[in-house]
Amino acid sequence: MTDSNSRKIAAIVGGGVIGGGWAARFLLNGWDVRVADPDPDAKRKISEVLANARRSLPALYDVALPAEGELSFVGSIAEAVSGADWVQESVPERLSIKHKVFAEILAAAGPDAVVASSTSGFKPSELQEGNEKPGQIMVCHPFNPVYLLPLIEVVPSPKTRPDLTQRAGDLLRSVGMKPLVVRKEIDAHIADRFLEAVWREGLWLINDGIANTQEIDDAIIYGFGLRWAQMGLFDTYRVAGGEAGMRHFIGQFGPALAWPWTKLMDVPELTDELVETIATQSDEQSGHMSIREMERIRDDNLVGMMRALKKNKWAAGAVIAQHQAAITPDFPEIKPEPLLLARRQIPQSWTDYNNHMNETHYLELFSVGGEVLLNMIGSDEAYVASGKSYFTAENHVIYVAETKQGDMVNIKAQVIDGKGKKLRVFYWIELDDGTLCATGEQMQIHVDLKTRRACDPEPEVRAKLNAIAEAHANLPLPDGAGRGIGAKR
Amino acid sequence: MTDSNSRKIAAIVGGGVIGGGWAARFLLNGWDVRVADPDPDAKRKISEVLANARRSLPALYDVALPAEGELSFVGSIAEAVSGADWVQESVPERLSIKHKVFAEILAAAGPDAVVASSTSGFKPSELQEGNEKPGQIMVCHPFNPVYLLPLIEVVPSPKTRPDLTQRAGDLLRSVGMKPLVVRKEIDAHIADRFLEAVWREGLWLINDGIANTQEIDDAIIYGFGLRWAQMGLFDTYRVAGGEAGMRHFIGQFGPALAWPWTKLMDVPELTDELVETIATQSDEQSGHMSIREMERIRDDNLVGMMRALKKNKWAAGAVIAQHQAAITPDFPEIKPEPLLLARRQIPQSWTDYNNHMNETHYLELFSVGGEVLLNMIGSDEAYVASGKSYFTAENHVIYVAETKQGDMVNIKAQVIDGKGKKLRVFYWIELDDGTLCATGEQMQIHVDLKTRRACDPEPEVRAKLNAIAEAHANLPLPDGAGRGIGAKR
Repeated sequence: MTDSNSRKIAAIVGGGVIGGGWAARFLLNGWDVRVADPDPDAKRKISEVLANARRSLPALYDVALPAEGELSFVGSIAEAVSGADWVQESVPERLSIKHKVFAEILAAAGPDAVVASSTSGFKPSELQEGNEKPGQIMVCHPFNPVYLLPLIEVVPSPKTRPDLTQRAGDLLRSVGMKPLVVRKEIDAHIADRFLEAVWREGLWLINDGIANTQEIDDAIIYGFGLRWAQMGLFDTYRVAGGEAGMRHFIGQFGPALAWPWTKLMDVPELTDELVETIATQSDEQSGHMSIREMERIRDDNLVGMMRALKKNKWAAGAVIAQHQAAITPDFPEIKPEPLLLARRQIPQSWTDYNNHMNETHYLELFSVGGEVLLNMIGSDEAYVASGKSYFTAENHVIYVAETKQGDMVNIKAQVIDGKGKKLRVFYWIELDDGTLCATGEQMQIHVDLKTRRACDPEPEVRAKLNAIAEAHANLPLPDGAGRGIGAKR
Repeated sequence: MTDSNSRKIAAIVGGGVIGGGWAARFLLNGWDVRVADPDPDAKRKISEVLANARRSLPALYDVALPAEGELSFVGSIAEAVSGADWVQESVPERLSIKHKVFAEILAAAGPDAVVASSTSGFKPSELQEGNEKPGQIMVCHPFNPVYLLPLIEVVPSPKTRPDLTQRAGDLLRSVGMKPLVVRKEIDAHIADRFLEAVWREGLWLINDGIANTQEIDDAIIYGFGLRWAQMGLFDTYRVAGGEAGMRHFIGQFGPALAWPWTKLMDVPELTDELVETIATQSDEQSGHMSIREMERIRDDNLVGMMRALKKNKWAAGAVIAQHQAAITPDFPEIKPEPLLLARRQIPQSWTDYNNHMNETHYLELFSVGGEVLLNMIGSDEAYVASGKSYFTAENHVIYVAETKQGDMVNIKAQVIDGKGKKLRVFYWIELDDGTLCATGEQMQIHVDLKTRRACDPEPEVRAKLNAIAEAHANLPLPDGAGRGIGAKR
């Protein structure tokens, strides 16, 4: 056991993708990690997982994670587990191998070390068979990628020491995970039983030529997968049942659904008692929220997740991106007046605790408008691919009126200076009734993407920019242009 | 049929949650919608769904959706469907009712109207029985909430006109949906077969006292639910299998998984032929990407989605928010030097096509730093709840050096003016080696949240702010402070 001033130690016994994921989770949360794995490839495998983890886990947080711990590779299980706070076994899924490994682990581990298995195939009582210290052994079953997904199924057997189950939960929470204690051990624990049910159904669909892997994956990612990332089976159906609630939902759909099921396999009888059990549990789970409230939470979650996927042009996000491209208006006509570059509704996710649009998103609106302007002058995807682009040098935002969720806003722009390498633009955010919400002023510089230094734009971009700059040349300098903070208005 | 210049028309036959969701999807995409439903509550129900949809669907897009179409409630099916481009039936799941409704629909619908059912319980051939124009009938099975989730299972029978199946797909895409054409009709189509498999397993777990609804939902939302929002069953396992690929994955896990399955129910035999079929389909689906590439896509998706959930403090996002609170450092000591307010790594999702942090997120960093400063002076959650807060009046950002994904940055701040209602702060973003990435200058105004007007801060906030302002009083005015865009440096 380490004293409270030194870093905690995790021993990783078996270092594949799962062991590597555990190693990364502990390391990036400031633990020292010792890996025992006879595989000569273990170092390479773990370093690859770690590279992925370093790229992604810190990105979840708006504060820095603790300074990374030290990673070492040791020659024996005894060396790895001696003095460790946590021992995680992720060796191949054969019980005889696991028994041998647990005997070695418990011969050298401290008496208060959590000794956990990543297994999905065995129950803790099976792992404990023949071991002299069964009380230290439990299952802590993770989900790939272990460095990102929070769920850990913590499965004790009746012999597992309750103080260690408690300690395991506390330590898992301290590295950002979500322990789900499985109260009765069962084959495959909880989550994998669902995965198996789905896998089995998928095999049948392919076997019978109904659908291929792509179609099955599409049926998941564009529909219920999105739902289940934020509300599970029962909360989803609770909301679907509406104000009438869970009893009503089961009453309405239960019997209808029984019909295809019974052709496939055995199902529990939906007795009044079982319906009552489910409805009562659902009330305990989510009865503190109204269905309307849950609908809004669900929708906000879905919007946020789909916007994240849209940024990556992936799955549901790709569908939205394509649709957006189809409904994006043509470039505005060039006239001696500000250009209407963009028009959009303010999403709920852009608001903050002051119940108005957060300061950051005003700049995002100018940035979106600026993108349209750059596309208009030919500084587009192909131009960037050719090695030229514009970088922003300065931005100045003046907040004039509060903007609320659901407001439809128009983003207008006037080119103040388009000479040489410079692109100086003034922006307005207005409501449809002309109310001014904010102004923005932006200085961009044309750059060579190889040298990352300023250079003149290509002639075709210069020509298109000049056309706009000339049309705007006689417009008055907008109110606020060139102003510094703290200046008298 | 409408001519090409007028708006398209959808007829919604049956207006509950599902019919209402269809109505909202069409309306918000500029279609006129006619609802036929004898339920006196139909108007209220649809208006509630529509309110949710207006709040969320436009939030997916960074451009405005088309101007909303007109919604009308009509007294008969004939009136609703006459001249409609699309007829969507969402009446109760009883075949006799559906047959009667489809007879009425096809007596009045135009010859090229898509006539679709939302059913999950019936196959299209069953719906077509006895109808004189079976060629127009198909299933278009949506997923709740219909106004947000893109998936539509388009299920024709052999009698359904292929031109109408094609047209249905085109129209669905034009309102932002993802048609999945089910090639062979089958009970429950594709997705609901998976939902039933999971529901059945859930009932057993509750029936047998293994887990309750909360535990089952937790097993979903913190683990495989997140995976399935962005990659389905087969792509997820493809990645899990690593470079060895899908054949290897099935070979390794297939037999092991067969063991719990066979205790539960019938499974298809994993013949060499079936393994080959699955592996080949998976190659066709995703063989154009390397496993490493897919891992990065998966991780970027997970990070983006979990950050969205974190904003809502929900599901996996709540776990991250709690962990973040636990690892957030104490407030910095007040000394005659800039305050180190925050420290964090730049996520991949903050970068843009120029391969550096997008301009908007510099302001986000200053905003995050500003939050810490406000908390330091007691303008915190409780203060906002008491009806006082700070609003931002101006921001000025000067971009100095490019900031890349993975960079660890420090956000420092100097209070320039904290007198009266004003809070003027200058910010720096620096790398650990002291490299300056950007500066920011911010003017905030203290406000009364009821009147939304400027007012003096409460004494305790004023005192804490003064302590910082006094410590910073003799620091030099930072380079760039008060500067306007276009000014000589």
